[in-house]
Amino acid sequence: MIRLESFVSGAWNAGRGDGRPFVDPTTGEVLGKVDASGLDMASAIAYARDIGGPALRAMTFAERAALLRAVSDILAANRPRYNEIAIKNAGNTASDAAIDIEGGIGTLKVFSRLGDKLGAVQMLIEPGSDQLAKDDVFRAAHIWTTRPGVAIHINAFNFPSWGLWEKFAVAILAGVPVVAKPASPTAWLAHEMVRDVVAANALPPGALSLVCGTGEGLLDSVSGMDHIAFTGSHDTGAHLRRNPRVFEASPRLNIEADSINATILGPDVANGHDIDALFRREILRALSVKAGQMCTNIRRILVPQARAKEIVDALAADIAKLIIGNPADAEVRVGPLVHVQARDEAVDKIVALTREAGTAAGGGIPGQARDADPKRGAFLAPTLLAAKDADHLRAVHEIEVFGPVATAVPYRDLDHAIALALAGGGSLVASLFSDDPRVGQKVVSQIANAHGRVMTVDSTVGKAHTGHAIVMPQCVHGGPGRAGGGEELGGLRGLRFYMQRTAVQGSPGFLNTLRGTSAEIAL
Amino acid sequence: MIRLESFVSGAWNAGRGDGRPFVDPTTGEVLGKVDASGLDMASAIAYARDIGGPALRAMTFAERAALLRAVSDILAANRPRYNEIAIKNAGNTASDAAIDIEGGIGTLKVFSRLGDKLGAVQMLIEPGSDQLAKDDVFRAAHIWTTRPGVAIHINAFNFPSWGLWEKFAVAILAGVPVVAKPASPTAWLAHEMVRDVVAANALPPGALSLVCGTGEGLLDSVSGMDHIAFTGSHDTGAHLRRNPRVFEASPRLNIEADSINATILGPDVANGHDIDALFRREILRALSVKAGQMCTNIRRILVPQARAKEIVDALAADIAKLIIGNPADAEVRVGPLVHVQARDEAVDKIVALTREAGTAAGGGIPGQARDADPKRGAFLAPTLLAAKDADHLRAVHEIEVFGPVATAVPYRDLDHAIALALAGGGSLVASLFSDDPRVGQKVVSQIANAHGRVMTVDSTVGKAHTGHAIVMPQCVHGGPGRAGGGEELGGLRGLRFYMQRTAVQGSPGFLNTLRGTSAEIAL
Repeated sequence: MIRLESFVSGAWNAGRGDGRPFVDPTTGEVLGKVDASGLDMASAIAYARDIGGPALRAMTFAERAALLRAVSDILAANRPRYNEIAIKNAGNTASDAAIDIEGGIGTLKVFSRLGDKLGAVQMLIEPGSDQLAKDDVFRAAHIWTTRPGVAIHINAFNFPSWGLWEKFAVAILAGVPVVAKPASPTAWLAHEMVRDVVAANALPPGALSLVCGTGEGLLDSVSGMDHIAFTGSHDTGAHLRRNPRVFEASPRLNIEADSINATILGPDVANGHDIDALFRREILRALSVKAGQMCTNIRRILVPQARAKEIVDALAADIAKLIIGNPADAEVRVGPLVHVQARDEAVDKIVALTREAGTAAGGGIPGQARDADPKRGAFLAPTLLAAKDADHLRAVHEIEVFGPVATAVPYRDLDHAIALALAGGGSLVASLFSDDPRVGQKVVSQIANAHGRVMTVDSTVGKAHTGHAIVMPQCVHGGPGRAGGGEELGGLRGLRFYMQRTAVQGSPGFLNTLRGTSAEIAL
Repeated sequence: MIRLESFVSGAWNAGRGDGRPFVDPTTGEVLGKVDASGLDMASAIAYARDIGGPALRAMTFAERAALLRAVSDILAANRPRYNEIAIKNAGNTASDAAIDIEGGIGTLKVFSRLGDKLGAVQMLIEPGSDQLAKDDVFRAAHIWTTRPGVAIHINAFNFPSWGLWEKFAVAILAGVPVVAKPASPTAWLAHEMVRDVVAANALPPGALSLVCGTGEGLLDSVSGMDHIAFTGSHDTGAHLRRNPRVFEASPRLNIEADSINATILGPDVANGHDIDALFRREILRALSVKAGQMCTNIRRILVPQARAKEIVDALAADIAKLIIGNPADAEVRVGPLVHVQARDEAVDKIVALTREAGTAAGGGIPGQARDADPKRGAFLAPTLLAAKDADHLRAVHEIEVFGPVATAVPYRDLDHAIALALAGGGSLVASLFSDDPRVGQKVVSQIANAHGRVMTVDSTVGKAHTGHAIVMPQCVHGGPGRAGGGEELGGLRGLRFYMQRTAVQGSPGFLNTLRGTSAEIAL
């Protein structure tokens, strides 16, 4: 039986309690236990803040970039072991595991390259300056410097690797020490990776801490200079905001919550068009990859009314060919959800949605699963629902089923499609499949303010697009309103969260001196 | 007796209650009453959101810039009337009034010019794009679009004009309707200005609402797409964060709280040096302008230990010459505080500070006041305290006396001065008077992360600097930690709070189409 430990205050700590079991979702078998009870969280945070912080701030961006490269090299050398854990503990197929593991390694690499470009400096300065006096002897420039707090990263279960390293990469490049708390059900992979990084002595003491367990007390000593970045449900996000310590101390808080993302098929796209095929292919991905457990996944499929039945039927036929089962099997496209509790919750939510939408494919626990018991494993059949009446939907716009589940909604015209997309109340991402740039221009300009990302696919893009659900490190990730109001990544834009912008007023000569010791960039 | 009304849902409303009196702080005379009880706040917010919002979003930046120009012209035409109110209700001297009134008009003008530059577009796009696919057929650009909510502006009593218009200018330029709530004690000026703007029919319906009174229920219907910008005390800021509707709905929240700002005299500056005189002149301003009631004001004066006594003595001699009294008198340099309650609170806080610092000048209610009764008026003598032991201060770093009060603290060396500046726990602004760029570089790089602005004055700047306390529209305003963690203004940077950044992924051709209908800028 594996026992996951926490790495805090520079040492591993197994916790004092019995621990909470975590399982193989394909079989239900208990793999190990995780426990963080009895940890001195205040000391853990103070160690990161007081030991890790000064060490990282004393380094240049280029030196911190080298840390990221070292971590990515360590992870890259251990891929096979991580893949095994991902298949076993997260129900990942091999390609699911790659998204999580290679995604983490790749994001570290991207940020190490960005850090190289910033070079051997510790300060950023925005281009230009403003003259403030009649004689040009007094100007203002804006600089960015590293905040002195810690970064507390509370990650979601669906990306134990990518979620850990994408947040880590940005914070460390900014010079802020990280205390990461993976979600207990899939913490094993994060634990294993951090063990390797710690064993290789790749980071300064205090730069990375890991809390495996419930994380009780983790926020009790946060200060106004600290940062909390959370990925998870809307409810847990609201719970964080409600924490008395959080609203008293007012640390920076970034929340990525669930989101009822829409994809739109343009009214210009006819049956048989390349774009029509690309659209269906992307929806099939949404209903299979990582068993649909991605916060960026397509949940609402907006299609022209006249084509709705045809498209739903075609998708249902494609869905029927998806093989569900043991993710270790190379032909399996849909693995289990994270655990049977999650599956049961998903089934309940599908029932709620079926009050507004008919079931075109799937709809619950599958009758069979390749190389697995469909009931003991946490399997959920890829489910396509089709809304009956687009104008009176509530559940479809509000309930996120965290699994391979999406609902088709017919729209009358482009304005209607836009209104339906906006009915999600703020989303991480929307996508549009259309070959008409006027459609693209209209949709983007009218839905962008409710979205952190909009992907548009036309014929010239073809299959080269990176996917509706895939978060690219170059692009901001996060969305307004229901999606939590956060913003992560976006290349160097991500540094903003961990740094302070300051207007420096002074003589042109002095501002030039500052510029000489800074990297010039706008975040 | 004047009765201030609220302008909500397109109509003036006097409130249902008896109202709260507001006074002339020079005499204590009640000038009028203000009341907002019985207002339907939910309808008021909905009117701004649903009528004002679409009208503003349908306009281009250039068109919104024209609105700001129209408002500034209306205000400029009524200056004498506003000055009278400022002197009468806010205890302003003529030059105090100018900071508030001309500051408001000037900020509107600066933002109207910035809007002209953005031109006849509604969307912003950041320079450059990122290639996301191996073949260059799929890229990402980042755009900014206007958020669909309202802007609720909760302003402080000390700047009834500037506070109103600096927030208004940025929100309106972004295309977001404003619901402004001035602080009751000095709401008269804001009320009069908005009356003039409404009478001139200068804005689309719903673009500007005004709530004169306690503002009860103002936040009860905020949504995740709304914005709350607050300027005031740390305690009221925490109270806002604790509002259940605020943490459930999670509107964007910007807080400018009080701050124990420091000024540093460089160790290189000798007695008789130009910079020494500039430093003393700036401290005299801090102890006279607006009777010290500025959140950006100098509260801690950090001076080299060896020169501390000499500097404190010189300042005390200068302070003795400041004339306190009726602000209508042209020779008066120091008017009353906003009301006697504020004066009494200030006196109590001075007593708390005197446990750590001796009194070098002032210290309480003055014995006499020019053309006024020093006890019936809300007068507080300009007060200079001198700390005894720089290493064991707590109150000096934590208690803001909102009046003409500052404490001199001796430092041993530059590292000590930096540590003392940082002991403020995050401030709006710090300033440094030094002629040595190495001192400047060291101080700026080490204190910037705890400050929203750092002003540096060397010999080449001389008297041309804009002042420690003066907020320039080109520079960001706000500070981390204790100062509330907010950021306002900074030229077009201020638009960020009211707009959404979105990563748009698509073909280079499509992204070029978007670029053609956007203004290119990084915020």
